[in-house]
Amino acid sequence: MDELVALCKRRGFIFQSGEIYGGLQGVYDFGPLGVELKNNLKHAWWKSMVYENDNIEGLDASILTNPLVLDYSGHTETFTDPMVDCKSCGQRYRADQVPETCKKEDLTEPRQFNLMFKTNVGPIDDGTSFAYLRPETAQQIFTNFKNIIDSTSRTLPFGIAQIGKAFRNEITPRNFIFRVREFEQMELEYFVAPGMDDHAHDLWVQKRLDWWVKQGVPMKSIELYNVPTKELAHYSKKTIDLMYKFPHGLEELEGIANRTDFDLGSHSKKQDELGINAKVKKNKDSNSKLTINVIEKGMVVPYVIEPSAGVERAMLAVLNEAYTEEELDNNTTRIVLKLKSHLAPVKAAVIPLKKNDDKLVEIAKNIKNDLQSLGLGRIIFENTGNIGKSYRKHDEIGTPLCITVDFETIESNSITIRDRDSMKQERISTENLKAYFMEKIT
Amino acid sequence: MDELVALCKRRGFIFQSGEIYGGLQGVYDFGPLGVELKNNLKHAWWKSMVYENDNIEGLDASILTNPLVLDYSGHTETFTDPMVDCKSCGQRYRADQVPETCKKEDLTEPRQFNLMFKTNVGPIDDGTSFAYLRPETAQQIFTNFKNIIDSTSRTLPFGIAQIGKAFRNEITPRNFIFRVREFEQMELEYFVAPGMDDHAHDLWVQKRLDWWVKQGVPMKSIELYNVPTKELAHYSKKTIDLMYKFPHGLEELEGIANRTDFDLGSHSKKQDELGINAKVKKNKDSNSKLTINVIEKGMVVPYVIEPSAGVERAMLAVLNEAYTEEELDNNTTRIVLKLKSHLAPVKAAVIPLKKNDDKLVEIAKNIKNDLQSLGLGRIIFENTGNIGKSYRKHDEIGTPLCITVDFETIESNSITIRDRDSMKQERISTENLKAYFMEKIT
Repeated sequence: MDELVALCKRRGFIFQSGEIYGGLQGVYDFGPLGVELKNNLKHAWWKSMVYENDNIEGLDASILTNPLVLDYSGHTETFTDPMVDCKSCGQRYRADQVPETCKKEDLTEPRQFNLMFKTNVGPIDDGTSFAYLRPETAQQIFTNFKNIIDSTSRTLPFGIAQIGKAFRNEITPRNFIFRVREFEQMELEYFVAPGMDDHAHDLWVQKRLDWWVKQGVPMKSIELYNVPTKELAHYSKKTIDLMYKFPHGLEELEGIANRTDFDLGSHSKKQDELGINAKVKKNKDSNSKLTINVIEKGMVVPYVIEPSAGVERAMLAVLNEAYTEEELDNNTTRIVLKLKSHLAPVKAAVIPLKKNDDKLVEIAKNIKNDLQSLGLGRIIFENTGNIGKSYRKHDEIGTPLCITVDFETIESNSITIRDRDSMKQERISTENLKAYFMEKIT
Repeated sequence: MDELVALCKRRGFIFQSGEIYGGLQGVYDFGPLGVELKNNLKHAWWKSMVYENDNIEGLDASILTNPLVLDYSGHTETFTDPMVDCKSCGQRYRADQVPETCKKEDLTEPRQFNLMFKTNVGPIDDGTSFAYLRPETAQQIFTNFKNIIDSTSRTLPFGIAQIGKAFRNEITPRNFIFRVREFEQMELEYFVAPGMDDHAHDLWVQKRLDWWVKQGVPMKSIELYNVPTKELAHYSKKTIDLMYKFPHGLEELEGIANRTDFDLGSHSKKQDELGINAKVKKNKDSNSKLTINVIEKGMVVPYVIEPSAGVERAMLAVLNEAYTEEELDNNTTRIVLKLKSHLAPVKAAVIPLKKNDDKLVEIAKNIKNDLQSLGLGRIIFENTGNIGKSYRKHDEIGTPLCITVDFETIESNSITIRDRDSMKQERISTENLKAYFMEKIT
């Protein structure tokens, strides 16, 4: 972990937020490479959900959330962690995260602490007008259910996918970007007719495992955890957690839950008429029945399967798998990030052999623009004049290809391409570069 | 505006947030089409900034912001609007937004109201540990200045670009998505040596106008407003606003400001040693000098040019320009969104002529998958079995191409393509479809 954290800072993946003012605990900023990796991961998820299925719609709902949404979802009441105070050191801890230095007799009894961030909305600050920062993206998928079926004419089964920020006031954020106060989620809510839920659940566990493998997280690093009944969240009939071997231990990478008809049932009016199976709180505020017409059954409240992954945890897993220290023949070592091409923050670096040679620089810039125009991600024009240093940098940041423009380029219209993983170099005609690049990157 | 708002709801672009609970004022959710349009706009900006320039880096910083950042930026003190209370109706208004029904004698003297949202951070809620939701993305570009030059070895001139949410507790949000409490910004901070700032400012005004034209917002809809000295923000030496003819009036679409060395100067330690030109508050908390080495000048605090645009305002302008009601020959009218192809939420709809014909459905799905694999955006498999209705829908949501699979497709391996704008249909060989599609869309 320490090497990875150091690399992330040194190369511009991840910085502590507000660092020049001593930071903000549990909050991170993503630098020039971090933002590309993050966007690439999010795009890979979106593509696999919204574009490659014929029955999944996208959504981008607000962070500020009407408190009623989180009252009826159960968050106001149950989205809590037990907290204890240490009477000798004055610190407050999550009950299961008390440092070993604390004496048990100094600790208070655990109290429940709600993890939602709250903020006043509007010009009057008397506590009556506030919103929560959403603790998960899921709830606004449910509250938009009717809007989405009305505007898209969907029938069951279908899904709604969303990527966006969520916020949890963690008592003790820790383990780099693993447990943080501000993070991004990628959540799908997949709606099915009651009775079809177990089958859909199995299907999504498999689909999600396949997706992780494509991102470079192999099956051997993942364990399935069938959450025991007594540990299940209040809304869940069954949950399968994908547990990943993070540098700090085996922890949840993604959870895939069968949420039954709890959510749509909770946010509906006239609940008594809807045949809801889950135990829901009586809703006196909703203006809508969250039902859909099913042939031969009439209006039903669908069941929902939810694969829910965190973007930062995905980044950490992908970086952890990609991070490699290699012994080279000349007894030196190199650090290389063996990221999948579609996730690499930079797809290729174009490097003129000499920094101040107008002709080489011009050719290199043209090549950069040509490759950039393919729309496959960021291409860097790398004008350091130091090839060895450039290779070392691009190994460390996971750039699949380095393209060097030298004096032979002018003579024979050819460039040298170096492959990140094999370190092999080959000279090819500039005319073939686009095709070569596309084949390597896609 | 009313027609546009209705279309946005009906077709799934934009919904009021938390609608089933009566909404949350000034906060919106983006539906299946809205999220695609928004992502396409953000990508067009990112591409034009980070990918198509050789000297611009990206960033994705946190929303939760250390209060010291906003103290030294001047926001805690000056990011306010004047507010008045109406003593007869009990309502609170922005001083310049009081409804005509309010009698002047009933209004209190204006008081300053800070527009930043605040939230408690950590388990102890005694007012000492809080963060702001960032009111703009710019400040964390400045606070990350050192991290970014250290990790990328940039020299002047260079820029840092960021897209992300920002929050302002507007007293009276209004005009649909124009003035809202939660929104997204696209901001570039372009750092130059002092003395080079006027030239860079002119350059960025021109570059940004060119960008807007490419998004379908023509020059004739934009007016440049050179903000008079007395109206300038405290950090600005000169600001050019791009004013757009929104449905509700001429208002700011983007601001391009010369922020001088105010920001980096404000967030630096040892300010006295740095030769800062702007008037900055004495910084007792920063641990960093935000300077960069300039040949023959040594360490200097750069000047900064900031083109700053709002994503929602961009959406509104682009939708407003694209929205067209056309009289057809048969005396009917059609609504068509003439969006630029790269912004269209759906690039093509593939429609089997008959809903339940296995063969047609299979061919249509294969075509959908083929086009989708090109990675140019969302393709929809449209299985309504009603061609006329599908054309009408895809005109309204701005889909450039509709591809119909009929019985001739099986016989002659050809499909019909309908162009959104001309409504012309032509039959082409299925083999040529990919090339045809790529040419039309890119």
